[in-house]
Amino acid sequence: MAANRILAHHGVLNAYGHISARDPDDAEAFYLSRSLSASQVGEGDIMRFDLEGDAMADDRRAPYVERFIHAAIYAARPDVHCVLHAHTEEILPFTITSEPFRAVIRSVSDIGVEVPRWDIRTGFGDATNLLVSTIEHGRDLAATLGGHSMVLMRGHGFTSCGPSVLRTVSTAVNLPRNARVLLAARQMRGPVVAMSAAEMASVSGVSGRDLGPDSPAARRGWNLWLAEVGLDGAE
Amino acid sequence: MAANRILAHHGVLNAYGHISARDPDDAEAFYLSRSLSASQVGEGDIMRFDLEGDAMADDRRAPYVERFIHAAIYAARPDVHCVLHAHTEEILPFTITSEPFRAVIRSVSDIGVEVPRWDIRTGFGDATNLLVSTIEHGRDLAATLGGHSMVLMRGHGFTSCGPSVLRTVSTAVNLPRNARVLLAARQMRGPVVAMSAAEMASVSGVSGRDLGPDSPAARRGWNLWLAEVGLDGAE
Amino acid sequence: MAANRILAHHGVLNAYGHISARDPDDAEAFYLSRSLSASQVGEGDIMRFDLEGDAMADDRRAPYVERFIHAAIYAARPDVHCVLHAHTEEILPFTITSEPFRAVIRSVSDIGVEVPRWDIRTGFGDATNLLVSTIEHGRDLAATLGGHSMVLMRGHGFTSCGPSVLRTVSTAVNLPRNARVLLAARQMRGPVVAMSAAEMASVSGVSGRDLGPDSPAARRGWNLWLAEVGLDGAE
Amino acid sequence: MAANRILAHHGVLNAYGHISARDPDDAEAFYLSRSLSASQVGEGDIMRFDLEGDAMADDRRAPYVERFIHAAIYAARPDVHCVLHAHTEEILPFTITSEPFRAVIRSVSDIGVEVPRWDIRTGFGDATNLLVSTIEHGRDLAATLGGHSMVLMRGHGFTSCGPSVLRTVSTAVNLPRNARVLLAARQMRGPVVAMSAAEMASVSGVSGRDLGPDSPAARRGWNLWLAEVGLDGAE
Repeated sequence: MAANRILAHHGVLNAYGHISARDPDDAEAFYLSRSLSASQVGEGDIMRFDLEGDAMADDRRAPYVERFIHAAIYAARPDVHCVLHAHTEEILPFTITSEPFRAVIRSVSDIGVEVPRWDIRTGFGDATNLLVSTIEHGRDLAATLGGHSMVLMRGHGFTSCGPSVLRTVSTAVNLPRNARVLLAARQMRGPVVAMSAAEMASVSGVSGRDLGPDSPAARRGWNLWLAEVGLDGAE
Repeated sequence: MAANRILAHHGVLNAYGHISARDPDDAEAFYLSRSLSASQVGEGDIMRFDLEGDAMADDRRAPYVERFIHAAIYAARPDVHCVLHAHTEEILPFTITSEPFRAVIRSVSDIGVEVPRWDIRTGFGDATNLLVSTIEHGRDLAATLGGHSMVLMRGHGFTSCGPSVLRTVSTAVNLPRNARVLLAARQMRGPVVAMSAAEMASVSGVSGRDLGPDSPAARRGWNLWLAEVGLDGAE
Repeated sequence: MAANRILAHHGVLNAYGHISARDPDDAEAFYLSRSLSASQVGEGDIMRFDLEGDAMADDRRAPYVERFIHAAIYAARPDVHCVLHAHTEEILPFTITSEPFRAVIRSVSDIGVEVPRWDIRTGFGDATNLLVSTIEHGRDLAATLGGHSMVLMRGHGFTSCGPSVLRTVSTAVNLPRNARVLLAARQMRGPVVAMSAAEMASVSGVSGRDLGPDSPAARRGWNLWLAEVGLDGAE
Repeated sequence: MAANRILAHHGVLNAYGHISARDPDDAEAFYLSRSLSASQVGEGDIMRFDLEGDAMADDRRAPYVERFIHAAIYAARPDVHCVLHAHTEEILPFTITSEPFRAVIRSVSDIGVEVPRWDIRTGFGDATNLLVSTIEHGRDLAATLGGHSMVLMRGHGFTSCGPSVLRTVSTAVNLPRNARVLLAARQMRGPVVAMSAAEMASVSGVSGRDLGPDSPAARRGWNLWLAEVGLDGAE
C-alpha cells in the first residue's frame, strides 16, 4: 500500500498504473491490487494472481486489464520480485521517438545501460488498442525486456522491475527526474555524458547494500516519502 | 457541475472556458452555465439555450459571450451531446504555428487523426477581437470542425465535442498531457510516432464500451477526479 | 493591497517586485508600498511619493530602492495611472536574448505590437548593479518605454503600465502565460502567428468597456482571483 | 535549521543534499546535520566535524556520506564560512553537457563569471559510485573549485560556498531560476547576454552591505522565506 501511495505522490502513478510483488512464499504467484487508482489502494484491495494472470482463490473482484504484464515478467524472470507499470508523462516522449533513454543521474543506475523500446504494432499489427490485454502480449513484452530492468512501451508508458519493492520504487521515483534532465540536456551544447556501465554497477552494488532495511541512506528517503503521504511509522 | 470542477482542477478550464450538454429531452436545446469561472459553477447557475445561442424561458442572467460556439455545433452535428471550449495553455502553441496536434497517447484517441485549425481572420478579417461573439462566427467554426471532434482556434484556444459528457471530459483531461508529450518529443531525435487510425478506432471502440456508467475502468478515473475536487459520491 | 496579493499568487510578483497607483486626486503623487514582499503588503504599508521618487509627508519608512521606475514613468506619461515592476521568471529569457516578446494570446493585447528592450549598460556603463536606483536611471528607462505599455529590462525583469490598476493587473496575470506559449511555439514547425495591431486595438477597445467595474467578464476574473487569495468581497 | 527548511521549500534540497557552517569560534571545525532529509532537520540533529570529515566529541550518530565535501573546502578556503551540496534538478543538465552555467540574473551574482565542472571520472576512474565518499575525493573537488564559489559535479549536482549562511542561501534559492532562464534563452534567437564581471562585482558589493542582518532588502526575502516554512520570528 505504501508503494502505491508514494508513487502516486511523486507523479509516477496516476489514475492508471500499478505495482506488484511476487509472493515471497510461492514463486508462482504475485500480489496486485484490484482495479483501483494507486492513491486509493488500501490493504484490503490486494489480490493474488498466478503466472498466467488469472486471479487465485476464486477472487472475482475486477482486476487491472494489464495484469498480464506482471504475470509474464514473473514467469520469464526468476530474479524479479517487483514489477511496476506506469504511464509517467516524462517518459512518454522517449517512447514515441528514437531518443535513447539513458541514465544520467546516479539515482536511476538500476535501469542499466540500455532500455529497450517495445511497440505492440510490431508483433500484433496496427489495430490493437495498445493495451497488454492478453498473456501473449505480456510474453512479447517480456521478450523485449529480456534481461534488462526497464522497457519503454510506445505511446503508452513503461514497465520496470527489480529484486525488491524498495529498489524498484526508489528507482521509479527518480525516473521522471532523469527524463527531465535528459530532455533539457538535449537542448544544450555538446554531447550528453551518461553514466558508464562500471559506474552503474558500482552504484547498484553499493545501493544493494545500502538499501537493506537498516541502512541510514535508504531509510532517509523512504521515511521522507512515507511522511509526505501521511504514513509515518507505517510500512 | 462536476464536469466544470474536474476540468478546472486539471487546468483545462480556468477563469474563462465552458462546457455544455445537449438537453437529453430536446435536441434543439442545450444547458450551459451563466457567465462564471468553471471552479465556481454550482447547480443553480445552469441556463438553457436554443441553437441560435439565445437564452430560453426569458432567463436574463448574463451568459457567456461565446455561447455561439455551442449553439452552432449542436445545430450542425446531431451526433454531438457535449461541447467544450477552453483556452488550455498547452494547446495554445499549436494554434499559432503549423505544428500538427496529433494523438500520441491512447487516452486522447477520440480527437482523431486530424485536428483542423481555425483562424477567425480568414473569414472575418483582421480587426476582430478573436471571440466567437455571433452565431455567424459559430457557424464558421462549426464548418471548419466538420466531422472532426476537435478544432484549434488561433491565439485563443480550442473547442472539442463528443457523444457524452464523460467521453468529452475524459479526453479533455488528457489533452494537456498529449500536448506536453508532443512538445518534448519535437526536441528529440527521430520522427514522432503518432497513433494510427486503426489504433484510435480500436481504443475508441473499447472505450465506448468501457466508458458506460458501470465499467470499472471509467469509474476508476471518474471517482478519482471527483475525490480530488471534494465531490465524492456526487455526480 | 488586493493587487499585490493577486500578483503574488499568480507568480508575477515574488519577494521583490512592486505595483503602484497614481493618486487620483493629485497627478503629481503616487502610492506605493513600503519595502515589503508583495504577498505581505497590507493597507497600512502604503506610502505616498512625488514624481522625483521622494517620500512625501516626512514618511521615514524604508521605501523600495527602485521607486524611481514609478516616479519617472508617471512624470513622462500623463495617461498612465498604474505602474508595475516585476522579475517574472518567464519574461526573463526575452530580456537576455533578441527574441521579440510578442502578444500571441488575446489576454495580453494591452502590451501592443512592440515591447522595447532596455539595457542599463547602454546608458550607464558596465559596472552598475542593474537596479534602477536613481531618478536618472528611471528617466532613461521611461525614454525607452516611450509610448509603449511594457519595457523589458535586461537580466532583471520588466516594467508595465496602464490606464488603471485593473487593466494593468489583468494583463500582467497573463504575461507568464503568453511567454510560455511563445517559448513552446518557438520549438514547433512554421512561423509564429502573433496578434495584429487591428486585433489588439479591437480587443483593448472591447476590454476598455468590458473592464469597467460592472462588466460581468471583468468581474468574473477579478472575483476568482480575490477568492484565490482569500479576499472575497474585499477590494 | 532555518536554512535547511528554506532550501527544501524552494526545491534546492530534497531528500539528499546538505548545508554546513564553519564554527565561528574554531576555524578547524564545522557544523552539519546528521544524515537526515533537509526538511526534517531540527536543532538537535546538528553534529560537529573536523576538517578531515571526522565527527568530533565521539559523536556516533550516522553522518552524511559526503561530509568530505564540506571538510575539504573549509580546509582549502579560509574565506568560506558556509558550504552547500545539492542535487537540484535544474542544475543537473549543465553537469552532463558542455553548456556553461552563467549568471544571467542579478540574484546569483555571487557565483561569479565562471563555474567550473568536476567529473569524478577524471581523477578516480570509471568505476566510482559518483559520491564524494573519501577525503581524497573532497580535496580533488576543492582543487577544481579553486577560488570560485560554485562547482558543477557531473551526473550528481553541485557544491557552492560563501562568506555566510545568508549569502549562500540567498544565492542558492535563485540558482534553479537562473538555470531555467538560461535553458529557455538557449531556445531563442540571438546570443545570450550574461552579466559582466563588473556588474557581478557591483551587485555582490552592494549585496555584501545589503545582506547584513539589518538591511531591509535582505530581511525582506529572508522573512518571506521563514514565513513560507512556518518559522516566522525564528532564526
